[in-house]
Amino acid sequence: MVLPAPGPALARSAAPADLVDAAVAGSPRALARLISLVEDASPQLREIMALLAPRTGRAQVIGLTGSPGVGKSTSTSALVGAFRARGLRVGVLAIDPSSPFSGGALLGDRVRMQQHATDPGVYIRSLASRGHLGGLSWATPQALRVLDAAGFDVVLVETVGVGQAEVDIASLADTTLVLLAPGMGDGVQAAKAGILEIADVFVVNKADRDGAEHTYRELKHMIALTGPAGGQRWQPPVVKTVASRSEGVDEIVDAIVDHRAWMVERGVLDARRRRRAADEIEQIALTELRARMGGLRDATLLDALAGEVVAGALDPYTAAERVIASMTASATGGGTIIG
Amino acid sequence: MVLPAPGPALARSAAPADLVDAAVAGSPRALARLISLVEDASPQLREIMALLAPRTGRAQVIGLTGSPGVGKSTSTSALVGAFRARGLRVGVLAIDPSSPFSGGALLGDRVRMQQHATDPGVYIRSLASRGHLGGLSWATPQALRVLDAAGFDVVLVETVGVGQAEVDIASLADTTLVLLAPGMGDGVQAAKAGILEIADVFVVNKADRDGAEHTYRELKHMIALTGPAGGQRWQPPVVKTVASRSEGVDEIVDAIVDHRAWMVERGVLDARRRRRAADEIEQIALTELRARMGGLRDATLLDALAGEVVAGALDPYTAAERVIASMTASATGGGTIIG
Repeated sequence: MVLPAPGPALARSAAPADLVDAAVAGSPRALARLISLVEDASPQLREIMALLAPRTGRAQVIGLTGSPGVGKSTSTSALVGAFRARGLRVGVLAIDPSSPFSGGALLGDRVRMQQHATDPGVYIRSLASRGHLGGLSWATPQALRVLDAAGFDVVLVETVGVGQAEVDIASLADTTLVLLAPGMGDGVQAAKAGILEIADVFVVNKADRDGAEHTYRELKHMIALTGPAGGQRWQPPVVKTVASRSEGVDEIVDAIVDHRAWMVERGVLDARRRRRAADEIEQIALTELRARMGGLRDATLLDALAGEVVAGALDPYTAAERVIASMTASATGGGTIIG
Repeated sequence: MVLPAPGPALARSAAPADLVDAAVAGSPRALARLISLVEDASPQLREIMALLAPRTGRAQVIGLTGSPGVGKSTSTSALVGAFRARGLRVGVLAIDPSSPFSGGALLGDRVRMQQHATDPGVYIRSLASRGHLGGLSWATPQALRVLDAAGFDVVLVETVGVGQAEVDIASLADTTLVLLAPGMGDGVQAAKAGILEIADVFVVNKADRDGAEHTYRELKHMIALTGPAGGQRWQPPVVKTVASRSEGVDEIVDAIVDHRAWMVERGVLDARRRRRAADEIEQIALTELRARMGGLRDATLLDALAGEVVAGALDPYTAAERVIASMTASATGGGTIIG
């Protein structure tokens, strides 16, 4: 990959406007810098997001989730190839659980993605996940905005299917793929709750293995139980793949295209994106409010109130009311993100 | 179990003060009513919590978590028996994932608890969990307060070890038990991240099965890797049990007693409880602020802002700033919980 020469636009102190221009012009370094600013919750973010806003709204966001071992990285890599074959620019955001235990293994898997590392039409980035056990980074929607504004046609968000991350990804993506594999011990059972609501497309990967047909039928049965498709109700198709040999991957792309057409026809895509934007705004506002509360905690008000609650001298509602009153009083004071 | 006759104190329209008095006097019906008011986020909660506050702070809170199938219900039931044998009153809060898929199975397991159903020294209650995939109900800390004020010496909070719930329970409990069982396919590996940080006591249940020794040693090895105990650093013991035959259950109780003594000696218990109260206050304040935001959403401000963000006419930070400004302006308006 030919990197642009590091001009003034990429200097360490580059102004947000220069960084945004460079990212839009295709500089992977500028992209990396912008996403790092997002991850660090930089005070420059507000200006950056204001600059990006007019360029956003084009990228198609595909979420990809599943338990460890179902072949998420291999499938992501194969999907990148399939989208590239159709002439599309592809961004990948891989959400790593921050755990020291699983981090190593995940980075190992990422080696598979290296076949795309020299392709300037592909940008791959890992983001740390929030907390021990999943939950997308709050940076994810903002990182999506960066890639969207930089002209990527498709952004794949890959995350391990643990806890909150699964729910988060579905609210973030236009189309959510849920991967399963036969003989995982857990299969459909452990995946259980929630996946029917979040999956737009099911993928049974490693379909050449024993038990694939069983997993496939179990899924079909679960889906059938939810009743027939129709109206505003999409019935998720089940695609069998062997991602390591790229078998069935075009069928996934076809299913994504079908799902998008279905959503556009019914105005569902626009509704999803509005809801996503509302969630994002709420999240930023709550983060800001929480930061102001954290300020209170440092300032010992919250700690003092907590002490009174532990001692039984105060109930938590009255304490919360005092916290809110104090935040409202200091609303003109120093917010950390919204300055 | 002899229920008190339903006097005026338990009428449908009972005043909070009467309900609290009845609950403290031992009426399971009043307890049930109070916890239902908590679950429904009743506007009466503020008054109730103010009445309960002076009575709280006595109960010892034990969290119990683990993957499906490790024997959580059986262990909880056995622990209830062990605490009862020591003359203690025991409350149990069982957090049910709200999923229709797992709900049935869980309720089935609960049958094991029925041996305590006729014991007036035991109160058992299920709480719905938040969201599809775990996370304790925000009602949990308040339900704990009810049981604490009603004079239960020990409250066991049992939750399936999925995602956020595990983290939540550790921040809620004085002592957190993490259960594992041999031959679960996942074992220590899948339990992986986080459990070392949250477990105060490890329990290897079904210790009569193949692989129990392996799971035990694997755990011991993981614990040893974190370094020696000392100072503010507690090293979690590993207890082997066969809960279905109550084997090893007294050893769990001993470990809980040891852990408590260790915490009290170092001021850790008080610090934990202060942190817990601070979290609770923050949670109530954030819930209130989110409710005010939801009000904005209904009032179409948030929706209008989201539409502008989707259209690229506005960035999400500016939108969030307007939301906060609007909330602050209406701070004297209708909060849903803090009235």
